[in-house]
Amino acid sequence: MASSDQDVTLLSSWASPFSMRAKLALLLKGIEHEDLPQDLGNKSKILLESNPVHKKVPVLIHKGKPIAESAIIVHYIDEVWPGTSPLLPKDAFLRAEHRFWTDFIDKKLLDCLMRFMRGDAKNEEFIENCELLEGAFTKLGNEEEGPFFGGVRMSFLDVMLAPYAVWIPGIAGVMGLKPASQEQCPRLHNFFQAVLAHPAAKLALPTVEALKEFLVARSAVYRGK
Amino acid sequence: MASSDQDVTLLSSWASPFSMRAKLALLLKGIEHEDLPQDLGNKSKILLESNPVHKKVPVLIHKGKPIAESAIIVHYIDEVWPGTSPLLPKDAFLRAEHRFWTDFIDKKLLDCLMRFMRGDAKNEEFIENCELLEGAFTKLGNEEEGPFFGGVRMSFLDVMLAPYAVWIPGIAGVMGLKPASQEQCPRLHNFFQAVLAHPAAKLALPTVEALKEFLVARSAVYRGK
Repeated sequence: MASSDQDVTLLSSWASPFSMRAKLALLLKGIEHEDLPQDLGNKSKILLESNPVHKKVPVLIHKGKPIAESAIIVHYIDEVWPGTSPLLPKDAFLRAEHRFWTDFIDKKLLDCLMRFMRGDAKNEEFIENCELLEGAFTKLGNEEEGPFFGGVRMSFLDVMLAPYAVWIPGIAGVMGLKPASQEQCPRLHNFFQAVLAHPAAKLALPTVEALKEFLVARSAVYRGK
Repeated sequence: MASSDQDVTLLSSWASPFSMRAKLALLLKGIEHEDLPQDLGNKSKILLESNPVHKKVPVLIHKGKPIAESAIIVHYIDEVWPGTSPLLPKDAFLRAEHRFWTDFIDKKLLDCLMRFMRGDAKNEEFIENCELLEGAFTKLGNEEEGPFFGGVRMSFLDVMLAPYAVWIPGIAGVMGLKPASQEQCPRLHNFFQAVLAHPAAKLALPTVEALKEFLVARSAVYRGK
């Protein structure tokens, strides 16, 4: 389903976990696109015009029409370019599960990490969230088929969780977060290793080292100083 | 697409705007189901077991499998029982818009109303959110075709916004919120009037009077007293 004339542009910011999702989905589908990296400290006219409500990245612009919010963008990509291996499963109940855990990542995991960075969340709360995700792997993913929720291929929920393969080690390195151990969350651990080794994820995600540098520069902001 | 043997149960709470969405979608599709109203002050075993992560209503249980989170439930209902008039439009860009404004309602409109009830948001912020929704109507709904985003029929986004047809007047009556005027937001005003007159919405939503009584009883809690 590679395409050369689809008129696809991605407004993104390299350290944004939401931007990484959109970029990863485009790469997994083989969709040619133009990247327009955004300076979030000095928002561009195209960003303000294409996402006037939230003024945030990522925004996918397809044939002149803007789509915002990472999970909505990945839904859109999957619907417009289903290809031979759609990201969302066919079964309606499994689709609901992928959406449920996406919502969990955005509402619980990310919120907990943001509060940890500000000094307002305990490490235990983060571990509890990881254990819930470990349970989702046990329920949805077949370990024998591969490390992802989608088996050997990344599926919708894999794309949603992938950015944390660099964000969690980044926060661990810079702000002292203690990640879940391999013993506590073996499936989650294998997932993150597989993400870091995945060709498309290597292009869509920054290195942990680069993210650490970003977090060092931003740590004063996160801590409200 | 009415069904009598689908084994559908809805765990809900009558005043919950999220529960109203799930109930309304079931009624619009003509899906027979059992209602299991929940006492949120004394959570039932079935609620805790079917939504162990959030422990919240609504939960739809279909053939023994639980689905949580209202927007995810309505997606599920639309996918399992598409019928002759699916709630989500066919066009991928319009689907993205329905999802975007659903997210806006949950993140911005509801958040603003909750903060208003606690005394932490100004009325102007609420009006600004209503004006953004008015813009969504202008963009997505064809006024000549009917009062809903879906024209004469309720669509996905109509279901998502419908509960505010009673919640906004409820908060106005009990806590002094000043709603957007008909002049400020004519399409939104027409939408809420059409919801209050819609047969399925009349069954899925409580009356404004009942919601006011609920809010009077809860106002001390909302204000953190």
